[in-house]
Formats: sequence, structure tokens, C-alpha cells
Amino acid sequence: MTITLTAFDRSPDGGKGLARDTRVRWALEEVGLPYDVRPVSFRAMKEPAHLAIHPFGQIPTYEEGDLVLFESGSIVLHLAERHAGLLPDDAPARARAISWMFAAVNTMEPPILDFANMRIQERDKPWYEARLPLAEERVRGRLSQLSTRLGDADWLDGAFSAGDLMMVSVLLRLRASGLLDDAPNLVAYVARGEARPAYQRAFEAQRAFNTGQPAPR
Amino acid sequence: MTITLTAFDRSPDGGKGLARDTRVRWALEEVGLPYDVRPVSFRAMKEPAHLAIHPFGQIPTYEEGDLVLFESGSIVLHLAERHAGLLPDDAPARARAISWMFAAVNTMEPPILDFANMRIQERDKPWYEARLPLAEERVRGRLSQLSTRLGDADWLDGAFSAGDLMMVSVLLRLRASGLLDDAPNLVAYVARGEARPAYQRAFEAQRAFNTGQPAPR
Repeated sequence: MTITLTAFDRSPDGGKGLARDTRVRWALEEVGLPYDVRPVSFRAMKEPAHLAIHPFGQIPTYEEGDLVLFESGSIVLHLAERHAGLLPDDAPARARAISWMFAAVNTMEPPILDFANMRIQERDKPWYEARLPLAEERVRGRLSQLSTRLGDADWLDGAFSAGDLMMVSVLLRLRASGLLDDAPNLVAYVARGEARPAYQRAFEAQRAFNTGQPAPR
Repeated sequence: MTITLTAFDRSPDGGKGLARDTRVRWALEEVGLPYDVRPVSFRAMKEPAHLAIHPFGQIPTYEEGDLVLFESGSIVLHLAERHAGLLPDDAPARARAISWMFAAVNTMEPPILDFANMRIQERDKPWYEARLPLAEERVRGRLSQLSTRLGDADWLDGAFSAGDLMMVSVLLRLRASGLLDDAPNLVAYVARGEARPAYQRAFEAQRAFNTGQPAPR
């Protein structure tokens, strides 16, 4: 059955892979499923046709026959539960990998988004300079805890899983800020994620999609 | 096998049910499983013994034999996948319910937490009065979209599910602010959640735990 995602017709990051369709593309590449992408403009995103498939007017969405899903975390989990490659077979390890998926979106991503949103949407606000250190401190606190837990392991809990896919995707938002650089093991962790052939294919696909330029040969 | 949760030894809300162990207690009550609770102090939460089971030094955690999980969303999902009562049997409906779980923790909760955290942690900051309306506006935007999607339905997608359990739990954080009152259908939705006998039992258990006072007879 054909799988169709929605993505920004032109991602605000210009193809740096930070839009949330990249996570889903990555998961699809890891499990080896082909997919189509339907571009949606910022305007169309807030119109009834798109709101019918995504109640919050965002991307990505996932369509597979009659099934329509939204939220990148749930789409990645849907793929991971049905195809080999993103969750361990062992039930306890599987449950722990899902804990890391939720940790990525509910513990790490909120302070990272607050920090990133401030830098984008609040840069001209009178409180910007005064509040940024607080937002930054919250991110540093979480990074420090994550770095301690990861230690010198390659991945968060045994083999690469959907938990790592989501965590690396969330951490990638921080690269431009330099905040990751305090934790060399997290820098290496993110680099291991990016080095996966499935990530490379996903990144290249979104880059070509957003820039209109095919991959260099 | 005995299930053991961790919870604040004294919840910062004094037993109003806003700490995240309430969500897990609610899920356990919905599926009819008994559980024990181990209190953890703020100090102990940041010490190695607790960090070994929760890398971010928070509550709740979930222990069931050798299995240790953290993140309320993943614990609720773990219970919902293994016991009847929190996810539909139909596979597409099940995947959609899980989308709502992720929407609760990754789309609704971050702006709600930013708003709630400002009111608690940033009240004495020089930017508080100036920035609060922005944080409030972000919450209102999400509430408006959620209210539109819910319409006059009882629950977000057919029968009550773990998606509703998580969404109601997230929305409950807003009650004191009055922000919910703009959307009478969301007020009624939250009230339907609270009226469930399983929620009542969970709420009463955390109240008694946090206040040291048994339930009135």
C-alpha cells in the first residue's frame, strides 16, 4: 500500500533536515519502505483539508490506505512496531526503547524548542537577552543528564532503536547553537546517527525536496 | 508480579493530582491492576540510586520485576498495550489513539508547561509581565485547535482511550489559570475524564498519599 507523507513545500530551514518529516523519512529508510511526499504550503496547512488530517495544522502526516496518522513520534512508533529494524524483539528492551522515544519528545524536546523558538520568534522582544540564559540553562541541565546516562555507549539502550532515532533528531536542532559541544559523547552520538545510511538517504531526500536540487553525483 | 511506582514524597501541588504519577495511577485503575508506590524526596530524586532508574531524576518510574520504565507516556502505553481498556482492538483506531498520546505530550503539553512554569518559576523575573501574554497566546492557539477537532464528541477518536487519558491529564494543568474556560467543550471533556471511576480512585489515592489523610468515608 502506498505511504504518503506531508512536508513543508519549502522548509523554513531551507533543507537542513530539522523539519519533522525528516524523522519519519529516516524511520521509513531504516525499515526499507518506499514513500511519496505531498508538499503543503504554510497557508494550506491551516485550511480545512489539511486540518482534517492534522488537527494542529502541522507536518508531517502519514497516510497508508485509509489510515491517517499525525505526530512524528506516533508515526515512527507505528512503523517500528510493524517492521523490523527499529525496536528490539525482546519485550522489556522494546518497552525501554519506547521510554526513550517519549523522553525525546516530552523531556528533551520541550526545553530545546523553547530555546530554539526564543532564538527565532523572540529575538526582537525586550526580554530576549535577559531570558535567553534561563532557557539555555534548562537545555544544559537536560543535556548533562543525557550525557551522563549515555556514558561511553554507542546508543541509549543496547542496539540502535527508534528511541535513538527520535533522540538524535531532537538533538540535531541544537547543533547550530553550540550547546552540544560541552558533551563530546553527545556530539559523537549525534554523528553516529547521521552516519547511518538510512539517515543519509532521508537527509538527502528532504534536501533535494526543499532545494529543488537533485543529489550531487 | 508486583508493580511499583515512584512518586514525590510530598507533591509540590499538595495533592491536587497534577504530578505525573496521577496519569499512571489512572491507567492502572482503568486496567484494574494493583500497585505499590515508593515515595522519593526531591533530594533523593537527584541521587545515583534514583538516576539509575530515571536518567532525568524525575517521577514517576515503573518497576515490574526486572523491567524498569520511565516517562509517564511510555508507562501508560506499556499498560495500554498489554491490558484491555485503554486502546481499541481495531489496528487503525489503535494507531490513531497513540497519535493522540503523542499529541498530548509533544504538541499540547510543551506550551502548557512553558506557561505553567513561567507562573511558578519566573514570576519574580523582570520579563514576567511582558512575556506571559505570549506564552498564554500559544496555549490558547492549541486549545482552539483541539476544541475545533473535539467538536461535540465525547472523546477524541471514538471510545475513551489512552489518548484521552493523556490529553485530559495535560489539560488539567490549566484549570487554575482559567484558560480552558474559553472552550466549554474542553471543560466538559476534562470533566468527563475526571468523572471516570478509575480517575476518581487514582485521584483519591494520590491525595491521600500526599496529604497523609485517608479518604473521607
